[in-house]
Amino acid sequence: MKLWDKGYTLNKQVEDFTVGEDYLLDQKIVKYDCLASIAHVRMLEKIGLLKKEEVKKLVKELNNIITLHNKGEFKVLKEHEDCHTAIENHLTKKLGSLGEKIHTGRSRNDQVLTALRLYYKEELKNCKMLIKKFIKTLNVFIQEYGEIELPGYTHTRKAMPSSINLWGGAFMDSMKDNLKNIEFSLQLIDQSPLGTGAGYGIPMNIDREYVAKLLDFRKIQRNPLYTQNSRGKFESTILHTLTQIMFDINKIATDLILFSMPEFNYFELPKEFYTGSSIMPQKKNPDVLELLRAKYHIILSYEFQVKSLIGNLLSGYNRDLQLLKKSVIDGFEIVKKSLDIICLLFSHLEVNSKDCKKGLTTELYATHKVYDLVKKGVPFREAYREISDHYK
Amino acid sequence: MKLWDKGYTLNKQVEDFTVGEDYLLDQKIVKYDCLASIAHVRMLEKIGLLKKEEVKKLVKELNNIITLHNKGEFKVLKEHEDCHTAIENHLTKKLGSLGEKIHTGRSRNDQVLTALRLYYKEELKNCKMLIKKFIKTLNVFIQEYGEIELPGYTHTRKAMPSSINLWGGAFMDSMKDNLKNIEFSLQLIDQSPLGTGAGYGIPMNIDREYVAKLLDFRKIQRNPLYTQNSRGKFESTILHTLTQIMFDINKIATDLILFSMPEFNYFELPKEFYTGSSIMPQKKNPDVLELLRAKYHIILSYEFQVKSLIGNLLSGYNRDLQLLKKSVIDGFEIVKKSLDIICLLFSHLEVNSKDCKKGLTTELYATHKVYDLVKKGVPFREAYREISDHYK
Amino acid sequence: MKLWDKGYTLNKQVEDFTVGEDYLLDQKIVKYDCLASIAHVRMLEKIGLLKKEEVKKLVKELNNIITLHNKGEFKVLKEHEDCHTAIENHLTKKLGSLGEKIHTGRSRNDQVLTALRLYYKEELKNCKMLIKKFIKTLNVFIQEYGEIELPGYTHTRKAMPSSINLWGGAFMDSMKDNLKNIEFSLQLIDQSPLGTGAGYGIPMNIDREYVAKLLDFRKIQRNPLYTQNSRGKFESTILHTLTQIMFDINKIATDLILFSMPEFNYFELPKEFYTGSSIMPQKKNPDVLELLRAKYHIILSYEFQVKSLIGNLLSGYNRDLQLLKKSVIDGFEIVKKSLDIICLLFSHLEVNSKDCKKGLTTELYATHKVYDLVKKGVPFREAYREISDHYK
Amino acid sequence: MKLWDKGYTLNKQVEDFTVGEDYLLDQKIVKYDCLASIAHVRMLEKIGLLKKEEVKKLVKELNNIITLHNKGEFKVLKEHEDCHTAIENHLTKKLGSLGEKIHTGRSRNDQVLTALRLYYKEELKNCKMLIKKFIKTLNVFIQEYGEIELPGYTHTRKAMPSSINLWGGAFMDSMKDNLKNIEFSLQLIDQSPLGTGAGYGIPMNIDREYVAKLLDFRKIQRNPLYTQNSRGKFESTILHTLTQIMFDINKIATDLILFSMPEFNYFELPKEFYTGSSIMPQKKNPDVLELLRAKYHIILSYEFQVKSLIGNLLSGYNRDLQLLKKSVIDGFEIVKKSLDIICLLFSHLEVNSKDCKKGLTTELYATHKVYDLVKKGVPFREAYREISDHYK
Repeated sequence: MKLWDKGYTLNKQVEDFTVGEDYLLDQKIVKYDCLASIAHVRMLEKIGLLKKEEVKKLVKELNNIITLHNKGEFKVLKEHEDCHTAIENHLTKKLGSLGEKIHTGRSRNDQVLTALRLYYKEELKNCKMLIKKFIKTLNVFIQEYGEIELPGYTHTRKAMPSSINLWGGAFMDSMKDNLKNIEFSLQLIDQSPLGTGAGYGIPMNIDREYVAKLLDFRKIQRNPLYTQNSRGKFESTILHTLTQIMFDINKIATDLILFSMPEFNYFELPKEFYTGSSIMPQKKNPDVLELLRAKYHIILSYEFQVKSLIGNLLSGYNRDLQLLKKSVIDGFEIVKKSLDIICLLFSHLEVNSKDCKKGLTTELYATHKVYDLVKKGVPFREAYREISDHYK
Repeated sequence: MKLWDKGYTLNKQVEDFTVGEDYLLDQKIVKYDCLASIAHVRMLEKIGLLKKEEVKKLVKELNNIITLHNKGEFKVLKEHEDCHTAIENHLTKKLGSLGEKIHTGRSRNDQVLTALRLYYKEELKNCKMLIKKFIKTLNVFIQEYGEIELPGYTHTRKAMPSSINLWGGAFMDSMKDNLKNIEFSLQLIDQSPLGTGAGYGIPMNIDREYVAKLLDFRKIQRNPLYTQNSRGKFESTILHTLTQIMFDINKIATDLILFSMPEFNYFELPKEFYTGSSIMPQKKNPDVLELLRAKYHIILSYEFQVKSLIGNLLSGYNRDLQLLKKSVIDGFEIVKKSLDIICLLFSHLEVNSKDCKKGLTTELYATHKVYDLVKKGVPFREAYREISDHYK
Repeated sequence: MKLWDKGYTLNKQVEDFTVGEDYLLDQKIVKYDCLASIAHVRMLEKIGLLKKEEVKKLVKELNNIITLHNKGEFKVLKEHEDCHTAIENHLTKKLGSLGEKIHTGRSRNDQVLTALRLYYKEELKNCKMLIKKFIKTLNVFIQEYGEIELPGYTHTRKAMPSSINLWGGAFMDSMKDNLKNIEFSLQLIDQSPLGTGAGYGIPMNIDREYVAKLLDFRKIQRNPLYTQNSRGKFESTILHTLTQIMFDINKIATDLILFSMPEFNYFELPKEFYTGSSIMPQKKNPDVLELLRAKYHIILSYEFQVKSLIGNLLSGYNRDLQLLKKSVIDGFEIVKKSLDIICLLFSHLEVNSKDCKKGLTTELYATHKVYDLVKKGVPFREAYREISDHYK
Repeated sequence: MKLWDKGYTLNKQVEDFTVGEDYLLDQKIVKYDCLASIAHVRMLEKIGLLKKEEVKKLVKELNNIITLHNKGEFKVLKEHEDCHTAIENHLTKKLGSLGEKIHTGRSRNDQVLTALRLYYKEELKNCKMLIKKFIKTLNVFIQEYGEIELPGYTHTRKAMPSSINLWGGAFMDSMKDNLKNIEFSLQLIDQSPLGTGAGYGIPMNIDREYVAKLLDFRKIQRNPLYTQNSRGKFESTILHTLTQIMFDINKIATDLILFSMPEFNYFELPKEFYTGSSIMPQKKNPDVLELLRAKYHIILSYEFQVKSLIGNLLSGYNRDLQLLKKSVIDGFEIVKKSLDIICLLFSHLEVNSKDCKKGLTTELYATHKVYDLVKKGVPFREAYREISDHYK
């Protein structure tokens, strides 16, 4: 039975179309919906709508669902539409009319929002951890190879001498800025939507602050319509943050694909990281790097999807917003996997000091020669022109 | 065993990452790879590399795979990487060293390309059929309601009188132009890549024309490097075509969402097409229309994904291109489902002639009044100013 | 005076905002609006609404505007809003109330559409010419250097031997497919919108076929609402076509940036094509190639802009659509310039046969060795494994 | 003379292509480049490379350029390439060889970056001010109309009663979150790049901290390569922030376009805000709202342009990045204008309490009826089903 069941059946084909993949995606949400429901029933107890005994039963059964879910035994079926219905149905089946009371004081709308926010918060924290791990890995890598000098490039042309310290350090700093981005996203979305109903409030007194506190939200999102209007807005900020992370990985991959070419050979990965060709027996292909590079564009398209989809929509909930879920969930999965892989790569990446040295040809030091003249008092432009004559 | 197996094992985590979802997506491709392989072995027979008896065995087993696949019994596992390996492994297991000969004269690269092109061609034809069906449905709808007049809008404001004939006819014409778009895409991609190897040809004489003819390709794609460089290019043209179709559906949905509001009530769908709310018992929500509207943005993001991903890549194959597969496959699935649903909607959509008539208020006829004056010889601008005085 | 003047003044700030850059962009459109107006007045003569003598005067003055425009002397001012008002105002100033008759039988809506379509058609033909010129330039380049062999790459790794014939030929074939894309776009948009008014027709008998014939349109776009609904749709097909062209240029630039690095030196451009650095005197930077590469993303963003902007809009004209103009106009300008430059580059590009030869190292021939065994009867997979042992 | 002049001339056509619009865009940057140069010469004095007297002259002339620029008399010509060259040329012309010393200790690369960052910071602050002004305007609007009740919608269908307090408050809260977004962007980019050269440092001792302090940067961006790698990354964060602002404006415009339709008439703007039609004399079109709606997609395409353009690029400067400038500059201009206009609108927007009341039909109170039962002790689901029977 659906949460909005009215005693007649939805057209089967329409139902299939509207449910889509939600029932599958919601596997990621089950836990958070149970946690939010536990807080919700405690609040209902506080305001006198549920008795202590009832709450005990509900909480026990909600925790039971989490246990079942962790064992892979809690099913969300297509006919449930989503996990929220599956959970309420489970409760009603187990606890009878007590299960029918749990939806008091909330709408599926704020219920979904709350579960998603809890999920987002946890995943953002997971990304934070993985980035910190990557920064540590980079640090170890730099400890080992940092002193090695190699050519620095601009315009894909040799420019000035660089070093592993400089190269690796650039990504460390960039990842540190990504942490700030995550921190900001976390802070932005850390607002409890529970109790805002379908965007126009709940026609009874509930204690939103209490629920928010139980769920460890920084504050409540006071305006009920804003909770709806921020759908897509918050998701797009999360995806922007994910894009930033993937951008760095895209650049690392681009650098490594080029500079691990045998023609340069500045970097090397173990052969177990390369794949082969079905026709060319000599090939060692950096597929893993190419895919890391490509995943940036996947995440970018998710961000754009969200931002395009939410345009020109009226205030308040629109079903279009349901489709946001997949991009963010898939986005988190891709970013977490990519961070895992990039850590793995850097813990195996080697720098060939010999080939790096071979790459340090004299033209890389032309700027130094200009500055040698500057130090002797020659105006910069004059010194520049003098040295540049050597390279015509 | 992988097609490029060299006797050592790929790092497990790297393998998982590079394989990704390919082994799942490839369920869509199995049939086409078998058909292409059948043509390939017939060609190998023609040029004397396989004996008649060998071809017979291979063709039989390839057809057997199609049968297994149709019954859902042909598995592509993660350790296979993709369906091409799964198929070759199956052949080798069944036919011994004969299976090892089938890869002669091709690379996995042109093999994948060929299977995908065959798949694209079939799906484009499926879309064509569904559009034709929708045009017919629109025609029936117009037969029934065409004469009904209703307000025509510009700038979301009443403009001049319109009619169901005009409104429905606009989408019929638009869908007819979509058919031309499909026709063009079909013609563009109808070039056989088989025999181009990994982009640099096959170092032996093969008969590409013969394979192309067997597979019903319009011509061969002669330049082997272009077969690789057109990856993503062809996909993006297909996705552009799908975007065009979804754009029309987006507009239909936008019109219907507004004009089926009780405030207008020009259009009506049966209640079995509306979904409800978990909190507001009166609600009849047009979720199905909102999702149709939203799917335009999903397809658009797939198109953009492909076009962003293929930028700044060197000529020849790059692994990034593997990720194109999913967007096109998902794109076709969404478009086909959306066309199905929009057909269903129009075969149930009703026009409320009474409310349409009520909407035909006098200001809609202001332009007619201008032209009444024009017909009496008043210059257009003078007539316009005279009538506009009534509406200040 | 505006075309819709009603005797009161628009808020100045709102006026500035709504006019935007239209009055500047419309410099591109003046000629086409005059040509369309000439056809329109001839049609008004045919149906008896204008006298021969009147038509003569109007046509003369419209041709006069084209002459003024060609000399840079026809101004479109911000207070005109757009060129259509500027032209009508000019006519009224010169010809008095005769100028007030020209708007009979049309709306600014179909007038704008017609002028734009004529402009699009001419620009698409210009692109066609430039592509043909580039194909010829490529052909001359191949005549000179085609026989030179150089390494072919997959996964940014040496794969098999390639040649300038193969490399250049890939772009010739790709550009030929682009011509087909243009041809399709041209055919799609070659429908006369004149006479459809603001999307709901003109309440009098006009001769649309006659106007279409005079303006050399393939046919009329019969359904007035579809002329409005195809706004953005047609533009997006044009921009998709432009994206395809720029994609090829992006790939050429990507190839040349890499392979003209001194580390490879397969290709070389004259020093007059390289720019320098303000600090590093030795630098010869391929800015021109980098910008060609980057412009693909600019065009792509224009395409996406159009496709995102037109979503979720009601049937019929919406002012949002006014913003389509800039993306297409800028798009054409960028593509034409890029094609010009790429022609220039290829008429100066040199291939260093010596460095190409140096690049042809033995591993490129591993596949040939496999096929040598295959020709001796060894099954392909066995031969592959044997040769691959050499490259562990 | 260009900053990298080497005594030969760049191909004219290549020069035109590479310079592009930079010399025009740089009008926005002149002031910031002068301010940065003033700080730079003071630092050169501090480390003993310039004498007090020299610094005095340079500072005076740089201030003079700002004055000229403010009067519109400082020209940046195409042959200058950009404002940086125009400024150095001006100094050399006025001060002779002293002007040739100013480039000591920096590259055009970090010079451009510094000027842009200063410009970004100022524009972000301008946006902040405009948002605060809009929040105040919203507040005044709510003071006047807040108590008025009107229907709240979900799925474009009447849902529950809303109010101007709720509706306007949602945008106030959303704009407050936008302020946080701006604050974060400001903090992120507030890192001084001056002294990082072309990404690989300056081969002499300079005092980066001192320059940063003079220019009021929060800190220096220590890693020189990261200053280059953060190009595009920082711009994309800025554009994401601008997208967020425009998203709110898009939603406001969408709401107002619908609810100011005469069919609803909840909201009303003065007639001076509406534009007319060239053919339909009765029309009052909300062009200003439609353009505000559309501008969201323009900004979104700029964001995507930046994010697509920066993918797959090697570490260090690439000329592609030059094209970032236009999107950000145009982005700021559009957002500032849109905020101005939305303020203007809300200071004239009226709410029709009569029509709002008329819209408050009984079904909006269905949820309240459910809760009346809940308060009497009926379990929520049972109450819901009882009330929903009335609306079948």
